[in-house]
Amino acid sequence: MAVLPAGPEIERLIQLLAKLPGLGPRSARRAALVLLKKREALLEPLAAAMADAARAICQCGTCGNLDVTDPCTLCADRRRDASLICAVEDVADLWALERAGVFKGRYHVLGGALSALDGVTPERLNLAPLLARVREGKVSEVILAMNATVEGQTTAHFLLDALEPLGVKVTRLAHGVPVGGELDYLDEGTLSAAFKARREI
Amino acid sequence: MAVLPAGPEIERLIQLLAKLPGLGPRSARRAALVLLKKREALLEPLAAAMADAARAICQCGTCGNLDVTDPCTLCADRRRDASLICAVEDVADLWALERAGVFKGRYHVLGGALSALDGVTPERLNLAPLLARVREGKVSEVILAMNATVEGQTTAHFLLDALEPLGVKVTRLAHGVPVGGELDYLDEGTLSAAFKARREI
Repeated sequence: MAVLPAGPEIERLIQLLAKLPGLGPRSARRAALVLLKKREALLEPLAAAMADAARAICQCGTCGNLDVTDPCTLCADRRRDASLICAVEDVADLWALERAGVFKGRYHVLGGALSALDGVTPERLNLAPLLARVREGKVSEVILAMNATVEGQTTAHFLLDALEPLGVKVTRLAHGVPVGGELDYLDEGTLSAAFKARREI
Repeated sequence: MAVLPAGPEIERLIQLLAKLPGLGPRSARRAALVLLKKREALLEPLAAAMADAARAICQCGTCGNLDVTDPCTLCADRRRDASLICAVEDVADLWALERAGVFKGRYHVLGGALSALDGVTPERLNLAPLLARVREGKVSEVILAMNATVEGQTTAHFLLDALEPLGVKVTRLAHGVPVGGELDYLDEGTLSAAFKARREI
């Protein structure tokens, strides 16, 4: 990025904005200009919101979710079924499932997926606390909601092996044709999974 | 945007991030998660950089540029030729020209372009201070670097009419084939302008 015809404060703002996902050097410049032009309407509130979030954010000691309280909003919600635990790789996956609004149990965020390539071993994931939660005996089912990637499925298999001896029911998300998806655009793996898991109508 | 399974601080952060150009609701969520996960490396520095920028930013009283000093870095630079003024619509255009590194005079930022549709009248632009700068008599040339849009060209014509009586040389950027551009992809207006302004080689 070329040196800007402006003070170091503005340059630093652009450099940091460019680190956000979805913003490159060019769009970071554009975002910075919008922020500078809307000082009172956007720049100051966003600076305050970031400072607030940095102060408040913490990791839930029970499930590993990121929230401003510990236990998090979901673990503290007594209306949610504590006998169901949905294990996910990342907080983003938890948010996605919550947006779908299909699950009313508790979560467990692993903080990633096993990957020999990236050196992610079982010890580096939030696995032991999940097993401890199950060992307490109040959990009837663990739903493995890993990504359908090699790493995600490796993690799911590892968890299945660790959970089976504890006598808990272990399930996984169904594979199949995405709702609204066209067969012509789907890969062979998905089509094959959808075919094998076909259901009578 | 659906309600998040997280505290109001996080929701507010996402809502404000979504107002940045280049980020929608979905990418704002992703950006917020990255910020929350990298609290010390990104969230806290960015919050501080925004607060610093909000405190420091001001508009140059001479040219209308946004900077942390008044007069701005460019107006204060004695190595820049004060007899040349390049008038631009927006600070972003000034930055773009500076990146090109082709101009070593001073700038004048109009803060927009005339537009009957959007109700932008000459009074709402930073025009009078430009005429005042020229009337001081130390300016030999004003370069009109407006966008090649209807609004930009309307603004350039208006400025030309206002500047001509002051006896100053007025120029505009050349129209033509962009460097690296392919004729096949250019519009008729650009091709026609490039053809009419052809030069002997």
